[in-house]
Amino acid sequence: MIEEYITTAIADIDKRLDELVDDDSTVVVAAQYSLLAPSKRLRPIITIATAEALGVPRSKALDAACALEMIHTYSLIHDDLPCMDDDDIRRGKPSLHKAYDEGTAVLAGDYLLTYAFEVIAKASDLSPQQKISLVEVLSRNSGASGMIGGQALDIAAEGHDIDIAALKTIHSKKTAALIAAAAHFGAIIGDASEEITKALTTFATTIGLAFQVVDDILDITTTTEQLGKPAHSDTEKNKATYPSLLGVEEAQRLALSLYDEAIAVLETIPLDTSILAAVADKLVKRNF
Amino acid sequence: MIEEYITTAIADIDKRLDELVDDDSTVVVAAQYSLLAPSKRLRPIITIATAEALGVPRSKALDAACALEMIHTYSLIHDDLPCMDDDDIRRGKPSLHKAYDEGTAVLAGDYLLTYAFEVIAKASDLSPQQKISLVEVLSRNSGASGMIGGQALDIAAEGHDIDIAALKTIHSKKTAALIAAAAHFGAIIGDASEEITKALTTFATTIGLAFQVVDDILDITTTTEQLGKPAHSDTEKNKATYPSLLGVEEAQRLALSLYDEAIAVLETIPLDTSILAAVADKLVKRNF
Repeated sequence: MIEEYITTAIADIDKRLDELVDDDSTVVVAAQYSLLAPSKRLRPIITIATAEALGVPRSKALDAACALEMIHTYSLIHDDLPCMDDDDIRRGKPSLHKAYDEGTAVLAGDYLLTYAFEVIAKASDLSPQQKISLVEVLSRNSGASGMIGGQALDIAAEGHDIDIAALKTIHSKKTAALIAAAAHFGAIIGDASEEITKALTTFATTIGLAFQVVDDILDITTTTEQLGKPAHSDTEKNKATYPSLLGVEEAQRLALSLYDEAIAVLETIPLDTSILAAVADKLVKRNF
Repeated sequence: MIEEYITTAIADIDKRLDELVDDDSTVVVAAQYSLLAPSKRLRPIITIATAEALGVPRSKALDAACALEMIHTYSLIHDDLPCMDDDDIRRGKPSLHKAYDEGTAVLAGDYLLTYAFEVIAKASDLSPQQKISLVEVLSRNSGASGMIGGQALDIAAEGHDIDIAALKTIHSKKTAALIAAAAHFGAIIGDASEEITKALTTFATTIGLAFQVVDDILDITTTTEQLGKPAHSDTEKNKATYPSLLGVEEAQRLALSLYDEAIAVLETIPLDTSILAAVADKLVKRNF
């Protein structure tokens, strides 16, 4: 059942993304290369599932969900640049700066980042207050106190010894903040109470951390072909990761303990959150 | 009188920008280096002067005006990167990627771009509808159909022969679109009628084109020291410019004719637009 839910959700998200970037200018075509490549669509799925748990139809959440995927994709494009993480493979094919060139990759990232806010501003069926709340959450969680701040810390930490607490801070910002925004988006669209909003974002933050621990483990235990991005890149860059600090087994235990914590929070919410629980399950127990 | 107006406006804008980016994280400190460097503050001044012409106090327009300056500054930071225009001097000092490094410059630009939308979302004294209109205008005018699209065309045109019409398209998008957004911002904040909004944005678009023609001329006729950015860089890059296509004298005539056109539109507006006219005059008749 969850497999079918995810397949249908991905199809809906892919279709809407395709419509939203239907333009043949150079920079948009370059952005399509990254944005429309097959992907897990984790963040938009969380937004949709959260909104649906709150009784809102998918159509009302779809554009905001797509905006989140644009922000996520721009961050991958910029992070892959030679002056950042210098990764040549992404979503199973050459990174954008390899397929095109670095200048185009910078601009295509800037475009997706900018356009995400336009998509929210133009989304139908949402009130101006809902849209402004979405803009505020998105900009805060993807900005200097969130995703961008996390990437800056991550780059600064490369080649240095850091402890688990510092690693957790990096991942809270770099990965978990945008996943938390995905649940927060659903809460805003579904007019959730403050209490439920807080529980939903705590759930998503915790699952976001678990997701990153699993990502770090998979970087060690799988191949580039399975991952669709370079395997062993953390080790090559001498990056501190959960398995490098704790060992693979202990990192696996941490991922499962974060998963349990997230599910416990989810169970306090008086809604049918079975889809969100199943998505969390799939994320943490994935093989790649 | 206009000198005093501009001096006071710049002081107000600088003070507010300083408050808005008051944070000591790496990426914000790097962004401060570019954002807080002395600058003409053209775009925020146009927003403030437009709002004031519509009877709105400066305080109500200041945050949105600062958001525009953040977008402008991020575009300079990214455009200066080696993979884009590769310029080493900006606002009278080393470009951000020279003072720090390329990765930090990409992230600081991403931060300013993202934060501009957060500043609008949090601005006081504006209605949710006004804020969403600002987000929509900003994202559209700085996106693929505006500033980013113009920069992509500009890079693609480097080293190629293009005609005046193509050059005008590039500059309409790359430069004039964000200057038009500045006037549009003032119109939104001042609740201007559709007719007055249209006249104000036409005025700003036309002055934006004149501004770019003057910029091209100054690239030839002045020094790096006077400009605060590399002089003769267009010639070195074999870039098509108004003076390279028309000669300096004819380009000067074009700038003045665009100025006359802009002032004629301004005069149709039933408001005291004397400050906007004086700003336009100063822009087109500047020496550097």
